[in-house]
Amino acid sequence: MTFGVAVAGASGYAGGEILRLLAAHPEVEIGTLTAHSSAGRPLSEVQPQLGALHNRLLVETSAESLAGHDVVFLALPHGQSAELAGRLGDSTLVVDCGADFRLRDPAAWETFYGSPHAGVWPYGLPELPGCREALRETRRIAVPGCYPTAVTLALFPAFAAGLLEPEAVIVAASGTSGAGRAAKPHLIGSEVMGSMSPYGVGGGHRHTPELVQNLSAAAGEAVTVSFTPTLAPMPRGILATCSARVREGVHEVRAAYEKAFADEPFVRLLPAGRWPSTSAVLGSNTAQVQIALDESAWRLVAVSAIDNLTKGTAGGAVQSMNIALGLPETLGLPMNGVAP
Amino acid sequence: MTFGVAVAGASGYAGGEILRLLAAHPEVEIGTLTAHSSAGRPLSEVQPQLGALHNRLLVETSAESLAGHDVVFLALPHGQSAELAGRLGDSTLVVDCGADFRLRDPAAWETFYGSPHAGVWPYGLPELPGCREALRETRRIAVPGCYPTAVTLALFPAFAAGLLEPEAVIVAASGTSGAGRAAKPHLIGSEVMGSMSPYGVGGGHRHTPELVQNLSAAAGEAVTVSFTPTLAPMPRGILATCSARVREGVHEVRAAYEKAFADEPFVRLLPAGRWPSTSAVLGSNTAQVQIALDESAWRLVAVSAIDNLTKGTAGGAVQSMNIALGLPETLGLPMNGVAP
Amino acid sequence: MTFGVAVAGASGYAGGEILRLLAAHPEVEIGTLTAHSSAGRPLSEVQPQLGALHNRLLVETSAESLAGHDVVFLALPHGQSAELAGRLGDSTLVVDCGADFRLRDPAAWETFYGSPHAGVWPYGLPELPGCREALRETRRIAVPGCYPTAVTLALFPAFAAGLLEPEAVIVAASGTSGAGRAAKPHLIGSEVMGSMSPYGVGGGHRHTPELVQNLSAAAGEAVTVSFTPTLAPMPRGILATCSARVREGVHEVRAAYEKAFADEPFVRLLPAGRWPSTSAVLGSNTAQVQIALDESAWRLVAVSAIDNLTKGTAGGAVQSMNIALGLPETLGLPMNGVAP
Amino acid sequence: MTFGVAVAGASGYAGGEILRLLAAHPEVEIGTLTAHSSAGRPLSEVQPQLGALHNRLLVETSAESLAGHDVVFLALPHGQSAELAGRLGDSTLVVDCGADFRLRDPAAWETFYGSPHAGVWPYGLPELPGCREALRETRRIAVPGCYPTAVTLALFPAFAAGLLEPEAVIVAASGTSGAGRAAKPHLIGSEVMGSMSPYGVGGGHRHTPELVQNLSAAAGEAVTVSFTPTLAPMPRGILATCSARVREGVHEVRAAYEKAFADEPFVRLLPAGRWPSTSAVLGSNTAQVQIALDESAWRLVAVSAIDNLTKGTAGGAVQSMNIALGLPETLGLPMNGVAP
Repeated sequence: MTFGVAVAGASGYAGGEILRLLAAHPEVEIGTLTAHSSAGRPLSEVQPQLGALHNRLLVETSAESLAGHDVVFLALPHGQSAELAGRLGDSTLVVDCGADFRLRDPAAWETFYGSPHAGVWPYGLPELPGCREALRETRRIAVPGCYPTAVTLALFPAFAAGLLEPEAVIVAASGTSGAGRAAKPHLIGSEVMGSMSPYGVGGGHRHTPELVQNLSAAAGEAVTVSFTPTLAPMPRGILATCSARVREGVHEVRAAYEKAFADEPFVRLLPAGRWPSTSAVLGSNTAQVQIALDESAWRLVAVSAIDNLTKGTAGGAVQSMNIALGLPETLGLPMNGVAP
Repeated sequence: MTFGVAVAGASGYAGGEILRLLAAHPEVEIGTLTAHSSAGRPLSEVQPQLGALHNRLLVETSAESLAGHDVVFLALPHGQSAELAGRLGDSTLVVDCGADFRLRDPAAWETFYGSPHAGVWPYGLPELPGCREALRETRRIAVPGCYPTAVTLALFPAFAAGLLEPEAVIVAASGTSGAGRAAKPHLIGSEVMGSMSPYGVGGGHRHTPELVQNLSAAAGEAVTVSFTPTLAPMPRGILATCSARVREGVHEVRAAYEKAFADEPFVRLLPAGRWPSTSAVLGSNTAQVQIALDESAWRLVAVSAIDNLTKGTAGGAVQSMNIALGLPETLGLPMNGVAP
Repeated sequence: MTFGVAVAGASGYAGGEILRLLAAHPEVEIGTLTAHSSAGRPLSEVQPQLGALHNRLLVETSAESLAGHDVVFLALPHGQSAELAGRLGDSTLVVDCGADFRLRDPAAWETFYGSPHAGVWPYGLPELPGCREALRETRRIAVPGCYPTAVTLALFPAFAAGLLEPEAVIVAASGTSGAGRAAKPHLIGSEVMGSMSPYGVGGGHRHTPELVQNLSAAAGEAVTVSFTPTLAPMPRGILATCSARVREGVHEVRAAYEKAFADEPFVRLLPAGRWPSTSAVLGSNTAQVQIALDESAWRLVAVSAIDNLTKGTAGGAVQSMNIALGLPETLGLPMNGVAP
Repeated sequence: MTFGVAVAGASGYAGGEILRLLAAHPEVEIGTLTAHSSAGRPLSEVQPQLGALHNRLLVETSAESLAGHDVVFLALPHGQSAELAGRLGDSTLVVDCGADFRLRDPAAWETFYGSPHAGVWPYGLPELPGCREALRETRRIAVPGCYPTAVTLALFPAFAAGLLEPEAVIVAASGTSGAGRAAKPHLIGSEVMGSMSPYGVGGGHRHTPELVQNLSAAAGEAVTVSFTPTLAPMPRGILATCSARVREGVHEVRAAYEKAFADEPFVRLLPAGRWPSTSAVLGSNTAQVQIALDESAWRLVAVSAIDNLTKGTAGGAVQSMNIALGLPETLGLPMNGVAP
């Protein structure tokens, strides 16, 4: 059985990656592709890498243009999904790559996004305990943010096993595609090549409350998060370096990770001595994870690498779609990275 | 029907890319993987991006270890394929990614490689007139060099249509993976990032006689080639900028390209005004081509972009294998690039 | 004696590089800095790398704000220099980094820039025969374009010595700063990293007539130029790969280059077997040049590397200023590159 | 007065950067340049960017070849400085860029370097309280490690002011030149471009005890350090993201930084809202620093950016040399970065 799929926001980076994955998915048929300022243009003008779809046209994003599909992916700016989703039928599977339905706490939403809270949908991080079950047969999915995907996979096993004090310190490096496709002066190539710089320092990044939500849920208590994102000179990839103080008496953490990821197709706990790299997961839905216990600082250091556009957005979205549609979870999703 | 496939040289960049493609190919089963200095190590130590194959071991390259497969890919240093291939049975499809069987002219081989000429096999560039036919049911394939793939696709339609004087000037930029995986001082990241530099200037690059062979065959007369390769600060990709004087009276060249590529699944002649970029073909088997007629210099400028490891090596190899095995030519081969 | 210097367009890449060089120049005092949309802002907000000037303010560009200096550098969009220069006194040394006064042929100007021709000023490429003399005591300097600087240095010795047929083929790779600082969608980091692409193919680039002018002047006859610029994934640098057919009977070209550059402080003809790289000249006013005679194609291949913002713009401007002011030509100009 | 200066290890990255700076220093004359495996070769073959020194030769490193200079810079592998320094006269200023004389604790040295402790020399980080005084008239200088330079500048003002709990968490990204010039497989361009990866995780990096030493000295109590270095896809630069819990009742930290850096020529505390970037300090001796107080996590986040080869090695060395020789501290040292 083949599912008809529409993509809203097909002109952006998330939309392009969704299309790359869907084009290789054996059980979907790509339907309407929508955009806003690029509506009316051929897809090939804005996504020249999608040679297999070069004759498609972009149309204006609207409930009407998106109607009649089994699945609709929303790759829209934050705050635009709620209204549109409300006008899509309940039987349509709506996969929202935006932030609108990720946060449970309305106050956190309003603090970080400045608009009324739209609600909460099942969370598209199947590896997080409880999520996979909630995704089965749902018709609404909130895809996690890219940083929360990387950080949560790095830390939840240790928090869930009660090994860590509830204060996490996270420094993550992201490729520039995480900042989207809008042409901003600080994002032009001349500025970012050869440069590392932080942003949103001191708790200001919008992914912070989502990190707090995920880690606190895993820990079963409120976890404090210090999160500093940095912009790295590469198009794709997130490397998340996470640490927290281990509780007294804890000398072993690896078993918790081995157990958490034993059956996970898309998380690879590396052999001892090997460390994640963003290049190894480029274009794949794989997360690499490795840990070390620093006995002199008494902290666990957990590092993960993902492709922010694949496992961090489009791949996580398709993986969750597969679950919701009752398809094999790995269908159509690359596990091998494009390296070097 | 599924074909058993072995890969010799699985620890290198070409070998890794062959495995990435084969892992997504529905009609092959990956068998023995061999290496030389890495023999005995897990594949995951040398190809950490191949998460789906992380439990495979590398064994020593030999005719014995490669025996018993329907297909054997050779991704070995130049000069090592001939002897090994001679010991593989005639019914085995041997796909050689090295240079050993590409050149028809023994003198050219000896000049550029300094060893006795091994012979000529059907040439794995299906788009070049005559090649596709020769690949059908062959059991021996010589995969083209990466530069010759890019350059030949850019220029053969115009030469074949008799539009050009027989003197081509080619300047091509390659990502560093084209130089292989050996750790050489001038290839370390500190040296290549932020840097463009030429090499093999003045006709010394080993791909020069292959370019002469292909373009002369297309033109039906001896074509002189000035070829300058340059190393670009990127891991993958070739951008070939090729030009030749147009013959007197020629004012139109586009029709020859439209005709040549009308039915080619992996060559995309871009719409007017769009130019190839290496990022648009990253990880795909697609070649982008565009041309311009410079009436002030009276030259045709033809530009192509490929991924040197995909269409330029492993993808071209799998495409040719598909033809030789009677499978659909596009089977298992990505047409969409991983961008941005 | 110290000269007071103003810079118009101090918020752009050329302006920033001029300031970096002037700040290290022992005989200048930096005066007024002007900008357009950034007027009123501290310099440090737009040029955070200029720590030594962090307390300077940008003011609006106007003849009034620029008055009262011994030297005024204009780093403005093409077409804006003529009117402004006309309002600066004849005793002020005006150094124009724009294109307005580079071309001698009004028709070529109008074809490529679409506005009336403003005139011709002494040309700031001291290495080109005749230029150094014209710069002495001038009060108006037209700084060459970045590509013409690189290409002219690579080819003029051979053309001036009568060794080449009058048809040059040039493919040059430029770092992204050559495209300026405006935030355009195709210039954001996500698009340019990992990517090589051509632009202005077929003779359309505005530096083409300047190339024709320089090479024809050197050759003493009209030289046809096929010029293809490409955008490379690096912030700075130009690598120009240039070739032309050598005249019959020519077997030696090196002597012409040795003679041309024997006394040039900023051009380094590399020892045989060494090739230019853009990283080796980063931040310096040095051009590296190397040549090879390809006897099979009967062409001379000449390659040069410069930093497009230093020798290609700001450094060439300061070098020419030194000559015009009667200072030592090398004063304040780095000859060593910042590498790796 | 001019000082004669020799450089041991002139073929490496640190040695090359020392030479770039010395060549622009008005009070030094560059004397003997030594190397090991490159001895006998022209400097220009291994440091082609040093055009101004292209006719120099490298000689074998020995006490004899280095004798007779006022100053000797040692840019040698760790463990080689002690014996050589012992054979240079007491009146010679020896500036050691290696680790041999940085650590006060012999046990820490032996744990991390595995050889007997050589001793302690005055520490070449003039900004750290007490260091500048110790450098005056010394004839032995231990240049800090690149990471310790970046991290210490980011954190010492807050520790010295008693604002922080004694547990620091540091994640730093370094350009690849920090790993030196040896051609190792994981450092080739194809591997590092597009990739972020950690190394030495869990306290294993040799700079850890130096960080502990510096921060503990500033705090006046033992500070625990969790340090994770990462390799970033750029040739140069360190971005250090450092944090520690603020002591109860602390709501303001900026004044401590303003006071610490008020008179420092090479440290720039950025205006509020501006964050350091490695590109802004490329090739300069400047450190950019910024801080934020994260009230939700109750941590101070301090970020610094330096060029690892300049302020992090060669620039810090020359700055310290200036102090020791009684020259103006800023002499010959660039404060402006090469950007973009």
